[in-house]
Amino acid sequence: MIRALFDEALLKGQSYAMLDYLSNTIGGRLSGSPEAAAAVEWSKQTMEALKFDHVFLQEVMVPHWVRGNKEVGRIVNSKKYGSLEVNICALGNAVGTGPEGVLAEIVEVHDFEQLEKLGKEGIAGKIVFFNRPMDPTKINTFSAYGGAVNQRGSGASEAAKYGAVGVVIRSMGLNEEDYPHTGSLNYALNLPKIPAVSISTKHADLLSKLRKTDPTLHFYFETHCMMLEEELSYNVIGELKGSVREKQYIVVGGHLDSWDIGDGSHDDGAGCVQSIEALRLLQAVGYKPRHTLRAVMFMNEENGLRGGRKYAEIAEEKKEKHIAAIESDRGGFVPRGFSLFMDDKTREKIQRWAGLFDPYGMGDFNQKGGGADISPLSSQGVPLLGLLPDSQRYFNYHHTAMDTFDTVEKRELEMGAAALAAMLYLIDTYGL
Amino acid sequence: MIRALFDEALLKGQSYAMLDYLSNTIGGRLSGSPEAAAAVEWSKQTMEALKFDHVFLQEVMVPHWVRGNKEVGRIVNSKKYGSLEVNICALGNAVGTGPEGVLAEIVEVHDFEQLEKLGKEGIAGKIVFFNRPMDPTKINTFSAYGGAVNQRGSGASEAAKYGAVGVVIRSMGLNEEDYPHTGSLNYALNLPKIPAVSISTKHADLLSKLRKTDPTLHFYFETHCMMLEEELSYNVIGELKGSVREKQYIVVGGHLDSWDIGDGSHDDGAGCVQSIEALRLLQAVGYKPRHTLRAVMFMNEENGLRGGRKYAEIAEEKKEKHIAAIESDRGGFVPRGFSLFMDDKTREKIQRWAGLFDPYGMGDFNQKGGGADISPLSSQGVPLLGLLPDSQRYFNYHHTAMDTFDTVEKRELEMGAAALAAMLYLIDTYGL
Repeated sequence: MIRALFDEALLKGQSYAMLDYLSNTIGGRLSGSPEAAAAVEWSKQTMEALKFDHVFLQEVMVPHWVRGNKEVGRIVNSKKYGSLEVNICALGNAVGTGPEGVLAEIVEVHDFEQLEKLGKEGIAGKIVFFNRPMDPTKINTFSAYGGAVNQRGSGASEAAKYGAVGVVIRSMGLNEEDYPHTGSLNYALNLPKIPAVSISTKHADLLSKLRKTDPTLHFYFETHCMMLEEELSYNVIGELKGSVREKQYIVVGGHLDSWDIGDGSHDDGAGCVQSIEALRLLQAVGYKPRHTLRAVMFMNEENGLRGGRKYAEIAEEKKEKHIAAIESDRGGFVPRGFSLFMDDKTREKIQRWAGLFDPYGMGDFNQKGGGADISPLSSQGVPLLGLLPDSQRYFNYHHTAMDTFDTVEKRELEMGAAALAAMLYLIDTYGL
Repeated sequence: MIRALFDEALLKGQSYAMLDYLSNTIGGRLSGSPEAAAAVEWSKQTMEALKFDHVFLQEVMVPHWVRGNKEVGRIVNSKKYGSLEVNICALGNAVGTGPEGVLAEIVEVHDFEQLEKLGKEGIAGKIVFFNRPMDPTKINTFSAYGGAVNQRGSGASEAAKYGAVGVVIRSMGLNEEDYPHTGSLNYALNLPKIPAVSISTKHADLLSKLRKTDPTLHFYFETHCMMLEEELSYNVIGELKGSVREKQYIVVGGHLDSWDIGDGSHDDGAGCVQSIEALRLLQAVGYKPRHTLRAVMFMNEENGLRGGRKYAEIAEEKKEKHIAAIESDRGGFVPRGFSLFMDDKTREKIQRWAGLFDPYGMGDFNQKGGGADISPLSSQGVPLLGLLPDSQRYFNYHHTAMDTFDTVEKRELEMGAAALAAMLYLIDTYGL
């Protein structure tokens, strides 16, 4: 069966053609945007055209943040270069500076402890530059991301505690790059919301270097982003009905929203089309599922997780028993295994299947984790799985203008869909 | 030690910068070309600048084949389109048609048995179109290549047996591609040398489709390639001298020549710079080798293997004992393991090291094979190893104009160099 699924995927796989449409015709699809609405309609029509047994929408209110005009970033009056434009972009959910911008002395820190030491005296009225790099020696690049991303997520509020007027975050990238990485921040309650941008890793290095010889260096940035009223949007769900236990569900999903500055091919168009394709592959090989299989396109993973939360909420309300949930949200690269988040006994059972995936080069079942969108199901005791593609290239594209369709390799994408289908088959047939 | 080598590679690796020069400043470097000469000089200077203990050249005469003016390929007088230009390129070592070209009816076959069945009656005076695709269901794409490449290597002579006037070979690619793949052919002795080209997979499909409704379809092609006089060229060798057994050698290498239509980044600029870098990494971490370690840039792998043969010949003449030889010639992608070609006992010893590479995602030590350039050492009983990068993307680039520097990911390339250094270290320290 697994061989049949991979053969179908490698000979007649549809993931790539679907992603072409989602990425190149619809494009970047931030929650609340017209493109996100188009993606909802497209997913629904696509699954209907594939004659899934049931396709439906789940209403969910989402934040509607817009970037507005292109950001401006400038190192001001450095001794070496005078004024110098740098590549920045606003962080998602951030307030904008408006056309007047923010101009202030810039102070560099690597963590929140350093910030605390500097205190109000060192920070008030200044822009804080968070410049702790991702650790390139981590082989799993998601570990490197995990070790740096609190700067982006919490840096603005941490700096606001001490009276900072803005923050500039080193982009979450591993290489010397010219382009910035966006991504969302969370403002803490009861603290001023200050503007926040990320800066390309190359310009972060330059800024750091110039500050060393020029400790009172100033920085200017201008962002036109703002949070609008919430919008009605949707999770999109397609089902193949179970022949034995129709009211028990196995979910495979990705998130339909993406950042606005790329076309969201890897994050997470790949996961969406692979989820649809996983069900199509099972159809194509003539498999009749025992449980109901659901492909779920979650809305608003990037700046709110509203779709994931809503899905779990409804599952709980309706007492829908979920056997397992699988997410693909780590890019459309060659699959290397599955990450697992569940009790030990269930994990050991799934790990015994690793050998079945070895012939496809994806026998790594040792990592922990599921996926953001399915994580709210965990409190209902649902075992979570994440597709694990090779991680080396992911952070070249993640949340950047470089996340585009041309960086996706067809075979790699299709193999990921086959892997999802194979895992659905195993769970559906042998249980957990 | 392995961790130290990977850290150095991921923090301060030089492979990518070296490849940038080799690919973007020198470019494609077919044997006998000025670019190949430049690459020899560059390799020598690079290893001298790194203060390797000894850097020297090994003379080797190489074939000097030139492509000449751009090829022309045309489907002639099809019922559907009339005449239609298609994307072709001459195969390496092939004779050219000259400006008059070849125009003939075209007959499609998938293998040599079909050809034999058609016989002189069906073939004489015609162009033979070899259109057996690589099998996309093979997870190891080199197996798919192995299953199709005899069409390119021997198709011309096999067709010439029955009086064909030319051959058109379906490109060795797995996807629907617009561009053709070159690569060398071998003419059999005592058979007419007929012109030979490859055609893009997309145009191969089109040609096949048109022939079905139009069985007397004609094809025209024009190639200006020719074989010139042999040229003097060189293998380039850099050594770190052994402190215990200076006269025993462990080789790591790749081939310096490449096809002319790309810049040869994956095939095999990657292997060359990784081999140099492997020695640099060992230097950088302060390792003192027991045996003499050699980085070898072999010349003329693509259309002659003269460098590999010459290296083995000299090793035999000089009675140089080689402990092992490692080649990197499968692209600069993320490393997944090593292939092994040696007696069972030695293989089992090396396979016990696989666990040391697991933390770097490269514990696959189960495949057979070494590398073309080091293969002539096998008859001297030298154990051969090949670096195994992930193979999914390789045949998108292999022997095409798409094999360019921008398709190489820095981390992946540097990790390959670290893997080579780690294997040199293990063999040098623990023996085989």
